[in-house]
Amino acid sequence: MNKQALLHIPDSQYCYPVGTHTVKLRLRVSAEDAFDGVRAVYGNKYVYHLKRSEAALERSFSDGTFAYYTLTLELTDVRLVYIFVLESEGKTYYFSEDGVTDSYDFSKAYYNAFQLPFINAADIMPAVDWMRGAVFYNIFVDRFYCGDKKKDRSYINLRWGDIPDPKSFAGGDLCGIIEKLDYLQRTGVTALYLTPVFCSVSNHKYDIYDYYRIDPQFGSKADLKRLVREAHARGMRVILDAVFNHCSEKLPQFADVLAKGRRSKYHGWFLIDGDRPDAAARNYQCFSFCTYMPKFNTSNKEVQKFLCDVAVYWVRECGIEGWRLDVSDEVSHDFWRKMRKEVKAVKPDCVIIGENWHDAHPFLGGDQYDGIMNYALTKACLDYFAWGETDEAGFADKLSALYMRNSGTVNGMMMNLLDSHDTHRFYSLAGKREDALIAALAVIFMHPGAAGVYYGTEIPLEGGYDPDCRRTMDWEKAEKGTEVSRCIAALAALRRRGELRFGSVRFSAQGGEFILRREYEGSALRLRVGKGRAPAAAGTVLLQYDCEKENGFSFIIEEESK
Amino acid sequence: MNKQALLHIPDSQYCYPVGTHTVKLRLRVSAEDAFDGVRAVYGNKYVYHLKRSEAALERSFSDGTFAYYTLTLELTDVRLVYIFVLESEGKTYYFSEDGVTDSYDFSKAYYNAFQLPFINAADIMPAVDWMRGAVFYNIFVDRFYCGDKKKDRSYINLRWGDIPDPKSFAGGDLCGIIEKLDYLQRTGVTALYLTPVFCSVSNHKYDIYDYYRIDPQFGSKADLKRLVREAHARGMRVILDAVFNHCSEKLPQFADVLAKGRRSKYHGWFLIDGDRPDAAARNYQCFSFCTYMPKFNTSNKEVQKFLCDVAVYWVRECGIEGWRLDVSDEVSHDFWRKMRKEVKAVKPDCVIIGENWHDAHPFLGGDQYDGIMNYALTKACLDYFAWGETDEAGFADKLSALYMRNSGTVNGMMMNLLDSHDTHRFYSLAGKREDALIAALAVIFMHPGAAGVYYGTEIPLEGGYDPDCRRTMDWEKAEKGTEVSRCIAALAALRRRGELRFGSVRFSAQGGEFILRREYEGSALRLRVGKGRAPAAAGTVLLQYDCEKENGFSFIIEEESK
Repeated sequence: MNKQALLHIPDSQYCYPVGTHTVKLRLRVSAEDAFDGVRAVYGNKYVYHLKRSEAALERSFSDGTFAYYTLTLELTDVRLVYIFVLESEGKTYYFSEDGVTDSYDFSKAYYNAFQLPFINAADIMPAVDWMRGAVFYNIFVDRFYCGDKKKDRSYINLRWGDIPDPKSFAGGDLCGIIEKLDYLQRTGVTALYLTPVFCSVSNHKYDIYDYYRIDPQFGSKADLKRLVREAHARGMRVILDAVFNHCSEKLPQFADVLAKGRRSKYHGWFLIDGDRPDAAARNYQCFSFCTYMPKFNTSNKEVQKFLCDVAVYWVRECGIEGWRLDVSDEVSHDFWRKMRKEVKAVKPDCVIIGENWHDAHPFLGGDQYDGIMNYALTKACLDYFAWGETDEAGFADKLSALYMRNSGTVNGMMMNLLDSHDTHRFYSLAGKREDALIAALAVIFMHPGAAGVYYGTEIPLEGGYDPDCRRTMDWEKAEKGTEVSRCIAALAALRRRGELRFGSVRFSAQGGEFILRREYEGSALRLRVGKGRAPAAAGTVLLQYDCEKENGFSFIIEEESK
Repeated sequence: MNKQALLHIPDSQYCYPVGTHTVKLRLRVSAEDAFDGVRAVYGNKYVYHLKRSEAALERSFSDGTFAYYTLTLELTDVRLVYIFVLESEGKTYYFSEDGVTDSYDFSKAYYNAFQLPFINAADIMPAVDWMRGAVFYNIFVDRFYCGDKKKDRSYINLRWGDIPDPKSFAGGDLCGIIEKLDYLQRTGVTALYLTPVFCSVSNHKYDIYDYYRIDPQFGSKADLKRLVREAHARGMRVILDAVFNHCSEKLPQFADVLAKGRRSKYHGWFLIDGDRPDAAARNYQCFSFCTYMPKFNTSNKEVQKFLCDVAVYWVRECGIEGWRLDVSDEVSHDFWRKMRKEVKAVKPDCVIIGENWHDAHPFLGGDQYDGIMNYALTKACLDYFAWGETDEAGFADKLSALYMRNSGTVNGMMMNLLDSHDTHRFYSLAGKREDALIAALAVIFMHPGAAGVYYGTEIPLEGGYDPDCRRTMDWEKAEKGTEVSRCIAALAALRRRGELRFGSVRFSAQGGEFILRREYEGSALRLRVGKGRAPAAAGTVLLQYDCEKENGFSFIIEEESK
């Protein structure tokens, strides 16, 4: 047994409560080790030396390097003390806070057993349940659809259909989105995520100068209210983009500092090395190297209040159901804790999705965000479907590893996506292979968490890196429908099933196929991805996609026979 | 190389900022693996694919199973992206979020490098600097000294010097502590931690019924003010015991629920299964199985406010410098976050010390407590000095492992201790071997963090488990002085040195000796513990203790020659 491979961390994704009497446990071991048995020996902290129960863990995931044993414990108590006992090659090992030992003295367990000392309700991360079945459609507003025919169009400098440059304005707006809600509903969409809509001089509007006003290019507060109302009427939710890491240099508070330097009462709102911000000298923190986007000092109490008030305002005023947090990894934990409290107090099932490209578990302990844009899954899909950098076994391993990064609660609130306004289009990276795109979408839709579709994927739109990934939508193609859009609609329809909303997940590879299996209440669905013709069915086929090309990706989604 | 042994977690004790431009890194590897080099390849996230720096890590700790490489990075930037590169047996390995690989593509690092995305001031855990040199004296108030000769003494039922039972009252009080401050100062004490002082019917006062009043047995608010003032005059600080997990059944809010059941507005303050608390039916949560100590629902907002107000009140009113948190591991994280914010807002260098017996890092990320009562160190000292369950190498390994549980910032704020009102006395567990006690004290005093001495240790008092560990102080012995008290005073004097306050630490074993080494600004102190006669000096001896018994513990503390 590789003792050094063992990992367990109480009060983390390795041990977390999902109810006052239900705890999920994970134990990491070497993937190379076989065990005759792995069990938790658990009890109440006050009588653990006298009375203990046992439960077997099940080998549930392997990522090639590590295997993960899991167990759901239903407790009669709210205090949990436990150790693990592993049987391997006729030997018994004990794993506690003191590491792996050949024996274990239960009379001294109060010093070194693992424990969840007391399950307090406030520390149980609530699930935003609607996320589990959600199909998000992520809209870069300026490029989606121009609905307001009466507005001042003088700012528009891009002919619809032409290739955008960084300064292009194409005219998309909130009314345009409202007009296309029926289209989106037909495509299976149940939630919208819009890039920023507040006042800004740019087309992307990630440089906001008025957080309380919808940019007139996009519409008005009334339009946003109507959009949310119309979306709700179609069973759809709306989340907005919270650009709280930085603002525009035109934000009045920053302008005040520019004018008054240290005498400005807003000097502490930003991170300025010196009296006055000086773009040429780069003496203040900003987003990336963009001096026109000064970074907020989110450690500052007044900034925290200002931004939290904004977050709460739009939830209250317009009934939005959540925020996607721009560049959230660069913002202080302290701020996110405060924002979560305030937003959730107003609307508990508001979802908070961070933009963290990396392992974000320090933000996902239940006190900050609910989930993230799952770019690590994006990368895994690219490696397998687009770049051929891994095979089906490597892909299954990777998906297992990523799933083990966070608790099941968080995994159910991830926004899984293939691309965004910040990446190349998946379709383009896949060399315009529709089979790769469609099969990857099947993974995104079958995976726990919300499925995210970047606008235009259904056509599918091409596009390299920003600004090319922000081309205008082709409505003629879209309204006519494509093979991709039909697949999306079919996949979206499946997401209403319990297996895909609440089911456990397993990733594996067998006989050249990648298999993603979801199980819920005795019923199981399986996605099987193969190369060439679709895999032969072993159950009731719910969806089938056959690629005609050699080595193209094909798949079936089938219901397992009971 | 044992790839599965590698562990690194950004934004944890493995990677944390100690300043806006200074980051501490740790990398865990197998203790069995030798490396020709381990380095961090780091840079700014926006240009990491183009420009990177390198810095070597140093093998600093080994716990027998794992070795830990460490590095302090001084940055020119506040955004850090990095991976580790390890050289072993002619091969080069790369360690990133994607695990160990044979090659690494820096152009895709934005997907999988480790990172500390932005060092925000609010997320840097501040050190309470005075803790690093502190010598705490932990007082069980009823048993220390009776100073108020005029008070109503009718409650006293134990003759001073007799063995206490659970219901004994001996008469110790705040005035008694004030009277003995000079004694404590002579003994080297720089901080007092008092068990609870608020109104309660018990001798231990862990069942409080009025959080705003000093128990008349112990004195008055004026007495506490005077104690703090007199302590300050002697350069001592005072911290109190925060019993926020539970209260007395006599707390008016609980009494109200007892009377009115669910109609009481305080029903939600407690965790009651049913309309009315029923001790016989055990239908409510309490401390351990003590139904007279009902547990607060610390998820409840009103309870949170009530307790935070108490915490802030005594800091403001009496100028205390901190709180020790009773049964803190059973209280919600949510509550501790709130309490920390409120207490630190009033007095930033107030220290918050949890009573967690186990690995407490989920509470020690900078948002909750500063440190804990270091019972894991207690256990390690017992194993080595009292029980002989480990040798000097095992002891060094264990201390290394424990030190690696938390950040250096937290390690500097631990309350290290050999025993308390909740354990057997160390002296008794060590079979009344003074050498074991004195040598263990030397470890406690040389270790990073505050040294804690339980009242009476200096005599030394004997005592088994509660209530025996709470015997009355023997003032005749104490005032006369003992070998233990002289050692404590000598050790305390050493704690003023920079090496012991700010120095790095290393634990090792060599030639039958246990060695604890502290280094600061080029100067190093070494504690060398041996069996039989004290180790031969290799530097300037600052303190020497020779045990005359065979196999007794002896030690020297020496300054290394430069």
